[in-house]
Amino acid sequence: MSNPFTRAFLDPHFLPPETSAALSFSGGRLDRLSEDRDEHTLQRAMDHPEARIWGLAKGRVLMRVEGEAPIGLHRVDVLADFAPQPDRAVLLGYDQGAPRLAMPLKLDPDGEDFALPQGHALIDFRSLAAQALLPPHELGQVAQAGALLAWHGTNRFCSYCGGKTQAQEAGAKRQCTACGRQHFPRTDPVVIMLTVRGDHCLLGRSHHFPPGMYSALAGFVEPGETMESAVRRETFEEAGIRIGAVHYHATQPWPFPHTLMIGCYAQALEETIVKDEAELDDCRWFHRDEVRAVLAGEGEKNEDGSPKFFMPPKLAIANRLVADWVEGRASI
Amino acid sequence: MSNPFTRAFLDPHFLPPETSAALSFSGGRLDRLSEDRDEHTLQRAMDHPEARIWGLAKGRVLMRVEGEAPIGLHRVDVLADFAPQPDRAVLLGYDQGAPRLAMPLKLDPDGEDFALPQGHALIDFRSLAAQALLPPHELGQVAQAGALLAWHGTNRFCSYCGGKTQAQEAGAKRQCTACGRQHFPRTDPVVIMLTVRGDHCLLGRSHHFPPGMYSALAGFVEPGETMESAVRRETFEEAGIRIGAVHYHATQPWPFPHTLMIGCYAQALEETIVKDEAELDDCRWFHRDEVRAVLAGEGEKNEDGSPKFFMPPKLAIANRLVADWVEGRASI
Repeated sequence: MSNPFTRAFLDPHFLPPETSAALSFSGGRLDRLSEDRDEHTLQRAMDHPEARIWGLAKGRVLMRVEGEAPIGLHRVDVLADFAPQPDRAVLLGYDQGAPRLAMPLKLDPDGEDFALPQGHALIDFRSLAAQALLPPHELGQVAQAGALLAWHGTNRFCSYCGGKTQAQEAGAKRQCTACGRQHFPRTDPVVIMLTVRGDHCLLGRSHHFPPGMYSALAGFVEPGETMESAVRRETFEEAGIRIGAVHYHATQPWPFPHTLMIGCYAQALEETIVKDEAELDDCRWFHRDEVRAVLAGEGEKNEDGSPKFFMPPKLAIANRLVADWVEGRASI
Repeated sequence: MSNPFTRAFLDPHFLPPETSAALSFSGGRLDRLSEDRDEHTLQRAMDHPEARIWGLAKGRVLMRVEGEAPIGLHRVDVLADFAPQPDRAVLLGYDQGAPRLAMPLKLDPDGEDFALPQGHALIDFRSLAAQALLPPHELGQVAQAGALLAWHGTNRFCSYCGGKTQAQEAGAKRQCTACGRQHFPRTDPVVIMLTVRGDHCLLGRSHHFPPGMYSALAGFVEPGETMESAVRRETFEEAGIRIGAVHYHATQPWPFPHTLMIGCYAQALEETIVKDEAELDDCRWFHRDEVRAVLAGEGEKNEDGSPKFFMPPKLAIANRLVADWVEGRASI
């Protein structure tokens, strides 16, 4: 059995050298001890005096927002006031031996009769990241909590036989009460690629993007594909551009609901865009200087002062792909 | 609507430059046209005069093995003799406009009363790859077929409500007949890493490996992890070794049942191994020269002539990680 206190790879002073570690939601450092769990682990963790717990409701996190710094990790008993669902709690892991858990709350942030006690708020994952309301290692816990609770919430029945499933090993898996089959949390790999050609990069906008926003193209890795073949297929399907070399840049856990974003650079073999009208509102080449100006907040403005063109915020890996290319840190 | 004949990114003469493309199961080049499908697509594909279909039973492929080259792509009507399940057929995509499909067969390769007509055999995926019984682009179709049919086979019920699900869009997804929820094929990202320290690499053997076989360590990416953090966690859990830099090398679709292998190199920060007794039978450092000799078939032998130490076959990405490191093609 491992002793959480000796697990030095989680040393908070170790700074991982890769780009992935600098991305939002990537800072998780808990010791999951997934192999050292049994049917008593969850209760033992809940009862631990140093246990702290995240309360989640519909993709938002219960935060105490009075005082100097917002607090998202609560004592277990504090959640009693917030419609807790203790039978759905999961153990994320241990922080220097102190259990960290997550639990869904039966609150409806969009409901009319919704009221939280003074000094509390439900804040969505993106805002927590964008406003840096949590330190990176806690934001990593939120990503893990969001992905894991979303998966448990959509896997209460066995996809094999239709029977009811039960969480096991403090949420590390589920098992069917009818056929006994085990189910493990799902993580969906998605490729997101900045396609470049000389001093230009390819950005597109979905129909549902806010006006003026452009981003890197992306799509799920399909059965039987490599990372590179998924990049080629998606870029061709969406923009009609053939791709030569593909280079990995970074990964990011993306809890919407349980995705692994795989960020790449892709070398365009041609220039003429044939966009997928169903998927994209627009798709075009942007010069490095234009992108650099926009990243610096110095791009062209509309008459009302809003930017004519902007990109996803820094919390998104698309932003980082563009920024690293502009600054010459892209491996292409 | 796209015209399959114009989809030049699938040009069979284009040779992708990355390592991934040289791996077994990575050669799939079908045009999936996942967005251009409706409720008539499957029947239209089955009726197409150029349609060809893979028949799969329990991880094996129906092959016609008489004649010069083994054949795995059959005319649809040929499968009539092999307990076909046409209601479970899926469309993989198009090869220059010709539909390629897959269908489970109700044959039990391990059953006693099992007999195939003369000139036919059921051959498992690994043997097809190891013996090069199919060209790379067909082996890629097998990987896609295996992953997709395995997923359909274990998702006939809705994990959200327990209702029955139905395949839609010729197998590109399933939908619940009760709650309407859509379900998409699952791909599980797994990191597999060759950990190196100077002229040594770290290899381990599971309890279930054949005697003498060692391989790179590996494990599923868990919720909230980056590729690199999964590499660090798995290496520490299994071998007690802390990792510094991590570099991506290649991905491989691995149809057992529907995995994306993400091959990496990992820089060890220490030498002393503390192996996970539950997971590993042995784990140790191997010198580059020893590994090179073994790859060349010139390693030490037991008295009966069998190798004292050997690695997974070339079809496995572990073999490639080791070979590329030995030959100086590893980015570490």
